[in-house]
Amino acid sequence: MSNLKTKSAKHFKKIALVGKYQAEGFAHMLLNLANILKNLGCEVFLEAETASNTTISQIPSIPSSEFHANIDLVVVLGGDGTMLGIARQIAGQNVPLIGINMGTLGYMTDIPLQDVELVLTEMIKGHFESDVRYLLEAEVLRNKQVIGSGLALNDVVVNRSGISGMLELTVHVNNQFMYNQRSDGLIVATPTGSTAYSMSAGGPILHPSVAGVVLAPIAPHALSNRPIVLPNDATIVIELIGGKDVSVNFDMQSLTQLQIGDQIKICRSNKTVTLLHPVDHSDYKALRQKLHWNEYPSSF
Amino acid sequence: MSNLKTKSAKHFKKIALVGKYQAEGFAHMLLNLANILKNLGCEVFLEAETASNTTISQIPSIPSSEFHANIDLVVVLGGDGTMLGIARQIAGQNVPLIGINMGTLGYMTDIPLQDVELVLTEMIKGHFESDVRYLLEAEVLRNKQVIGSGLALNDVVVNRSGISGMLELTVHVNNQFMYNQRSDGLIVATPTGSTAYSMSAGGPILHPSVAGVVLAPIAPHALSNRPIVLPNDATIVIELIGGKDVSVNFDMQSLTQLQIGDQIKICRSNKTVTLLHPVDHSDYKALRQKLHWNEYPSSF
Amino acid sequence: MSNLKTKSAKHFKKIALVGKYQAEGFAHMLLNLANILKNLGCEVFLEAETASNTTISQIPSIPSSEFHANIDLVVVLGGDGTMLGIARQIAGQNVPLIGINMGTLGYMTDIPLQDVELVLTEMIKGHFESDVRYLLEAEVLRNKQVIGSGLALNDVVVNRSGISGMLELTVHVNNQFMYNQRSDGLIVATPTGSTAYSMSAGGPILHPSVAGVVLAPIAPHALSNRPIVLPNDATIVIELIGGKDVSVNFDMQSLTQLQIGDQIKICRSNKTVTLLHPVDHSDYKALRQKLHWNEYPSSF
Amino acid sequence: MSNLKTKSAKHFKKIALVGKYQAEGFAHMLLNLANILKNLGCEVFLEAETASNTTISQIPSIPSSEFHANIDLVVVLGGDGTMLGIARQIAGQNVPLIGINMGTLGYMTDIPLQDVELVLTEMIKGHFESDVRYLLEAEVLRNKQVIGSGLALNDVVVNRSGISGMLELTVHVNNQFMYNQRSDGLIVATPTGSTAYSMSAGGPILHPSVAGVVLAPIAPHALSNRPIVLPNDATIVIELIGGKDVSVNFDMQSLTQLQIGDQIKICRSNKTVTLLHPVDHSDYKALRQKLHWNEYPSSF
Repeated sequence: MSNLKTKSAKHFKKIALVGKYQAEGFAHMLLNLANILKNLGCEVFLEAETASNTTISQIPSIPSSEFHANIDLVVVLGGDGTMLGIARQIAGQNVPLIGINMGTLGYMTDIPLQDVELVLTEMIKGHFESDVRYLLEAEVLRNKQVIGSGLALNDVVVNRSGISGMLELTVHVNNQFMYNQRSDGLIVATPTGSTAYSMSAGGPILHPSVAGVVLAPIAPHALSNRPIVLPNDATIVIELIGGKDVSVNFDMQSLTQLQIGDQIKICRSNKTVTLLHPVDHSDYKALRQKLHWNEYPSSF
Repeated sequence: MSNLKTKSAKHFKKIALVGKYQAEGFAHMLLNLANILKNLGCEVFLEAETASNTTISQIPSIPSSEFHANIDLVVVLGGDGTMLGIARQIAGQNVPLIGINMGTLGYMTDIPLQDVELVLTEMIKGHFESDVRYLLEAEVLRNKQVIGSGLALNDVVVNRSGISGMLELTVHVNNQFMYNQRSDGLIVATPTGSTAYSMSAGGPILHPSVAGVVLAPIAPHALSNRPIVLPNDATIVIELIGGKDVSVNFDMQSLTQLQIGDQIKICRSNKTVTLLHPVDHSDYKALRQKLHWNEYPSSF
Repeated sequence: MSNLKTKSAKHFKKIALVGKYQAEGFAHMLLNLANILKNLGCEVFLEAETASNTTISQIPSIPSSEFHANIDLVVVLGGDGTMLGIARQIAGQNVPLIGINMGTLGYMTDIPLQDVELVLTEMIKGHFESDVRYLLEAEVLRNKQVIGSGLALNDVVVNRSGISGMLELTVHVNNQFMYNQRSDGLIVATPTGSTAYSMSAGGPILHPSVAGVVLAPIAPHALSNRPIVLPNDATIVIELIGGKDVSVNFDMQSLTQLQIGDQIKICRSNKTVTLLHPVDHSDYKALRQKLHWNEYPSSF
Repeated sequence: MSNLKTKSAKHFKKIALVGKYQAEGFAHMLLNLANILKNLGCEVFLEAETASNTTISQIPSIPSSEFHANIDLVVVLGGDGTMLGIARQIAGQNVPLIGINMGTLGYMTDIPLQDVELVLTEMIKGHFESDVRYLLEAEVLRNKQVIGSGLALNDVVVNRSGISGMLELTVHVNNQFMYNQRSDGLIVATPTGSTAYSMSAGGPILHPSVAGVVLAPIAPHALSNRPIVLPNDATIVIELIGGKDVSVNFDMQSLTQLQIGDQIKICRSNKTVTLLHPVDHSDYKALRQKLHWNEYPSSF
């Protein structure tokens, strides 16, 4: 995707705006953003669902499933959750995304709204860095039949219901037995998802460019069931061997209920999404701000 | 309860046996245990539910609710789960318990079955240590009405369902605001429960004699939401302010479904249970064995 | 110490000021504080070491070792480190302390400088809460001879040098063997110290009123060597059985070098220090601020 | 290195034996191993230092620095520590290693001594899997001059002495500022080192084939200073900005003392070592055994 770096203004002609945030004044912000882009010579569209949630009539709308043939660039206004939703929808369509936040810096929505005119002007000119994120794909197998499947940019999570006891899983990696695990669940996260639910469960941070996937157990019975990072070409098979009311979730947005004996087969998807950032972008800035990391030396 | 130490054989005349384990040969083990106790001059009963799960007819049965007036000592054959169940049922009845394990050392069931004759002989003679465990009691309040309540020897757990997102709680202690917490849930555990679910969630071990209660968040959003130990006279009020499909569980054995705005008020119960141990008992032995702690110096 | 609650202004006649902070304008702040106290009818002294570090000549000085007979109250201007130092010096002298911070809220120095006139006026009148903190005392034994000893308000720490490998310790509690531990070291912390070094090593927070002491291993070889909370009447004996360049530290302010075979015997000191707080004091406020705990519900 | 897979017996003609273990009967084990290899048609040598520690005179010795030109395969008898030492010495020499343990399964020394004849026979025939491990190289810079350097198969560790307070570091990755960190130290570990000191400090396990490096802080002041995994082509610069008695260690075997302002520049070395394993090798087996992971489903 590094060839994106050589793209110039003429490549980003048709731009779709996406936003799910229902804040007061949101339509106004979208219109303002559209005007900035029009002034830069772009043709602007509203993603269909975004359009249906606002009263904006002066901008044509287009469903995300048709971005591939019609859209050169997606600009997302909102938080990481909004970015996550649209990214999964258009994964594999080969249309890059830019994320604008509305006050709270996101890991993926890294451009503050107040800087948007200046920053977009530069990026539309072709001054940007591209950042390719891989997704996971998972199949749920029951008696060797596929009964469900899903795509995840953040994580595939097997977890129990709050009204049942611990679940028990058998995990194989590339056909090798790893372990039986008793826990509240198991998170399989991409680097993108490593700063989300996985981090709450004790998982490490993976820089977006690490070719790895993290397995982070949730409240494991065995204290030595530590998070483990596998290469992202690993095929992970999780079999449910104990527990009730267990489900598998994709980005915590869709799910399949599981029965004892069900297997979830997880591997890297061949679909990716590409995020574009300003040229001075730093992944560590968001980490420092969101995790209250020290920026300045302390006074000893 | 330290006056129990001066009790002698004549005080432990009527003994109830409890066991839930359905292993092969279990009835035989119970009968053998009954004979040992009869040979020591005791009158032996089977707890009613235990009796209903076996085919033993030659021992009279008695419901646990009537132990107080009729039983001097309860001998439990099984694991910590079995001990937990019966302990909650007879909490406050002032009848002590002895725990016999069937191969796997428990935190509470500390006497191996093969040593039972020797050990019980000494304990029935009055050579034992007593170990009083406190319980938590909780009320669930909806619109200031009590809609549920429960008793817990291990823990009171507020947690989400696997099919919903993070929950959000507001926690007050002794009417002081502590924090708002986003997480999978919050465990309020006694020292007895500190080696159970709380430990899986990252909580510290509390020695049984610590007068404290531990609050251990499950997969908290804020990395600094560390486990906190409060004095066991604290009154903890947890209010559900966000999330769906949330429940409160008592020892993971009974539960109440919660709605937004519900409050769970948790404090130390005035009911206790008393465990009896052989005189050479060590709480650290079970920790070493169960947690694979080093017993011997390593070769450097 | 709860009788302190009934004390009134006439009891806090003679007040010593303590501060170690060398910030610009520090002398001016001390003088201002002295004037506030004089206006409240108090007689003001400078602790001798504080006096020697400033150029203030108009206030009489007094060494901390003589506070017991001459001083009714100590007012500390600085951070928790300053409080820690003076508290250890006057532990057992039965003179309470008030902590004033200079901008950064401390766990013990909880009164902001800008509120000092208002708050001290109320406290000198007798409106305060008292908060008794216990200390640890430790003896270092070599061949059964005491070769060193120390007092700690925060923690007693056995740890290795950075230029040597892991150390190995044998730990006994009340003459019962707990475990052999290989690690970078072991922290034995009071509730006061539970938010200091112990927390960095993974230890739980102990509310100041918990009658407990926490043992927190530093980077232990065995992943199951979790922090453990013991009742504060426990006697802990740590024996060094492996490692080089190992020392024992008291509040990280004084230390003794150890040899293989040395034992450190740690128990609760009968000396305490009493901190005074405004009546609306909350221990959770400092935790929320210092640990970035969520104070407000998040927008779901 | 995957071309090693096609090598056959004729490639492994000259074999060097390495062992540092001074156990009783060690010379006998080495001689036995030499005989097995001679019977397989190999010419056997003793690594010079190994030879100097035994009384074996009937086998010619050769220094490890000359392996490249004279040796086809190194067989190590001992634990992971022994393997670590020799691997660093011969890194880049393009001579593969096989690790034999003497009872305790190692992560790298995965062949039990009792199976050695059977296993080596197969491996010498060319039936093996090869496993390439990368090393880190580090330079220590003072006033822009290189004052020290080192190679590490496990980890580069910056840490404080036990007699000093926390140190403070500024970390840059690929010239981007990451954070200032106050802690006991910082571990930069390869996947090989991820199961060593880094794991004790809370770091994740990295499968040997992950192209990543883990930064694991030791007892960090900020609770959100979580372990972070970077791609292994990252250049990490650590500057010491606070603290006393700080050193940088390479595999905890050699070190350089640091001064304030010193920088340690760490990147992937172009030297590797290749470990050979039997064809049924599983990295998870050692993890299960060493970390007491559950191998069998529990009885619910």
